[in-house]
Amino acid sequence: MNAVTGFDRIVSLSVPSRVESYISAHDFAHPTLVIDVDAVERQFHALSAGLGRAHIHYAVKANPHPAIIERLVNLGSGFDAASRGEIELVLGQGADVDHVSFGNTIKKASDIRFAHNAGVTLFAVDAEEEMLKIAENAPGARVYIRVIVDNSEADWPLSRKFGCASDKVMTLLAMARDLGLVPHGLSFHVGSQTREARMWTGTLDQVAAIWHRACDEGFYLQLLNIGGGFPAFYGEEIQRPTAYAAAVIDLIEARFGFVPQIMAEPGRGMVAEAGAIAAEVVLTSKKSEDDLHRWVYLDIGRFSGLAETEGEAIRYQFVTARDGDVTGPCVLAGPSCDSADVLYEKRPIQLPLSLKAGDKIIIRNCGAYTSTYSSVCFNGFPPLDAIVI
Amino acid sequence: MNAVTGFDRIVSLSVPSRVESYISAHDFAHPTLVIDVDAVERQFHALSAGLGRAHIHYAVKANPHPAIIERLVNLGSGFDAASRGEIELVLGQGADVDHVSFGNTIKKASDIRFAHNAGVTLFAVDAEEEMLKIAENAPGARVYIRVIVDNSEADWPLSRKFGCASDKVMTLLAMARDLGLVPHGLSFHVGSQTREARMWTGTLDQVAAIWHRACDEGFYLQLLNIGGGFPAFYGEEIQRPTAYAAAVIDLIEARFGFVPQIMAEPGRGMVAEAGAIAAEVVLTSKKSEDDLHRWVYLDIGRFSGLAETEGEAIRYQFVTARDGDVTGPCVLAGPSCDSADVLYEKRPIQLPLSLKAGDKIIIRNCGAYTSTYSSVCFNGFPPLDAIVI
Repeated sequence: MNAVTGFDRIVSLSVPSRVESYISAHDFAHPTLVIDVDAVERQFHALSAGLGRAHIHYAVKANPHPAIIERLVNLGSGFDAASRGEIELVLGQGADVDHVSFGNTIKKASDIRFAHNAGVTLFAVDAEEEMLKIAENAPGARVYIRVIVDNSEADWPLSRKFGCASDKVMTLLAMARDLGLVPHGLSFHVGSQTREARMWTGTLDQVAAIWHRACDEGFYLQLLNIGGGFPAFYGEEIQRPTAYAAAVIDLIEARFGFVPQIMAEPGRGMVAEAGAIAAEVVLTSKKSEDDLHRWVYLDIGRFSGLAETEGEAIRYQFVTARDGDVTGPCVLAGPSCDSADVLYEKRPIQLPLSLKAGDKIIIRNCGAYTSTYSSVCFNGFPPLDAIVI
Repeated sequence: MNAVTGFDRIVSLSVPSRVESYISAHDFAHPTLVIDVDAVERQFHALSAGLGRAHIHYAVKANPHPAIIERLVNLGSGFDAASRGEIELVLGQGADVDHVSFGNTIKKASDIRFAHNAGVTLFAVDAEEEMLKIAENAPGARVYIRVIVDNSEADWPLSRKFGCASDKVMTLLAMARDLGLVPHGLSFHVGSQTREARMWTGTLDQVAAIWHRACDEGFYLQLLNIGGGFPAFYGEEIQRPTAYAAAVIDLIEARFGFVPQIMAEPGRGMVAEAGAIAAEVVLTSKKSEDDLHRWVYLDIGRFSGLAETEGEAIRYQFVTARDGDVTGPCVLAGPSCDSADVLYEKRPIQLPLSLKAGDKIIIRNCGAYTSTYSSVCFNGFPPLDAIVI
């Protein structure tokens, strides 16, 4: 244990993971995400150990690679699906439909009907119009109300896009009941990449107040869906998964008392550390003789897999064969003819000054929100390849 | 002519284009870009009429749909390619290789070699390392040096990602000569969506100073590549294409004198107005009873074709069957479970308050930078469809 912070760093920079060793030993014609499904399984067990009786519904959008879904099906995981396409995917890999929730609050009527006909009975809702669509297209379904919470402690706080304010929750629960639906519970999201369990406290206080008010008003809520927010290691310390999950459950029990069903939706926290990207340096340069920093251009950028560098939000870590050489500040950019395709400029990163065109570069912990964010053919570049080892 | 501003609005909101009429008359299962290739041809002629002897090299990245490329090949257009993939595409559609330039300053050595072997002889360069790659992989090639200019008058100014400062231009020209390459000319980019020709003035002053200095130093420059920046109509007045192009050429001749070859690379200005997207409202809601604005969620968002709404930079225009009803301020968002998938929030847009889930919505002038920016399978949603009428 780290005496100062009270938790360990989850990854030591000195020990390459299995995917990093694989990348070092192989050549790649294009940027490629390499995934270790055994690492996903280990993370599933680590999170499950902390979550106890709370059930994991993997957030498929983080990485829908069929090999990941298949492994999680075999481990008994549930699935949080964002779309008809994701429902088809997980059912195709053998998921039990009772363990699939349609967690997007924004659903076409035809997709709700598809899910209902496929046997999905659990839906997220945050608005009256959505409730009407569900009542019409999935009669009798269980619904949980997504609530907006203040989540200022996350590395990537969410916008107000999802959820409703507390003043609407009772209205929606009553509407569900009146429409013949089951007002089943509440959901929230603490914010992406919430690095320590203690950062959940303020959010849980807010949701518990709504939960208890709903119970006081006669709604027999069954389900608390705590969403995601489980972190991955990007260079800043994070709490280990088992301790993190257990501490979150402790915080919940202290505020909610007995909750019949708790559901957690890790996505990034399940798969990010199980993948790394093999990339290549295409060009290094200085814009002017006087510049104090260099530009380093990779064969992957914001539109070919690294979308989460928008606003320099997620700061990936890079490994090269020249690590140990003298470093200097570098602006990092992608290969496209798009001036917005810059990864890190406001806060340049330190890279070896010996780095040059043609060098291989490994981007760590890229298992989440990379391959499917890649564009179909931006600037004529093919989408990010993904392979499983 | 508009007496106040001196130029007409290019599109009247009261007259639906052919693609908009087509969308109104058809149903679409998924968001679909509808392209009118005849409109591309009209724009090619309009730009050519103003550009005179300057040669158009269409920026393929704006929209690489094969039907667009084929039509432009037949019209005698040249092509600015960002990648090996785009070179393969235009050659496959019958483009003359002498009319293809490899305009990306960031190229893998293997892709330079591919282009050289395919017969491409013209390459963009902004750095020493790139020059070495070209000398090695495309011996004898013609190169033009991309220079950084101050382009503060564009709607979307470019970063410093491309080009070198003026202090490096002579170094690179000399390096080209010493390596057996042809120091052929200069290129620059005035900034995307530069709405009036007069906004080019400051940029052209800067580039002309470099051009004349190079000539004074004994470089017999042949080519001035003026890049793109030609605007499309997104609601703010723009100068008509022929007058715009002619005025740019006048500004160039006043500053450069006789230039043997001028090349222009319109992308957005060639195809944006030739396309519209058929989309659908998925949900409308208020987050709280007290909110003054509504949220409107579409079945297309930032990760499925509308990438250029990042930072609310490009403000698309929307047409619905309810136009004319009372409007109110709306936050507009995409359908994914990603909190960053919000189109307009800081500056909400006015939409009919009667708009509801299931309504068709037309997004105008979407022919550029939409279909290929779409992600492969973000949140399980299919990529943006594209059809030609």
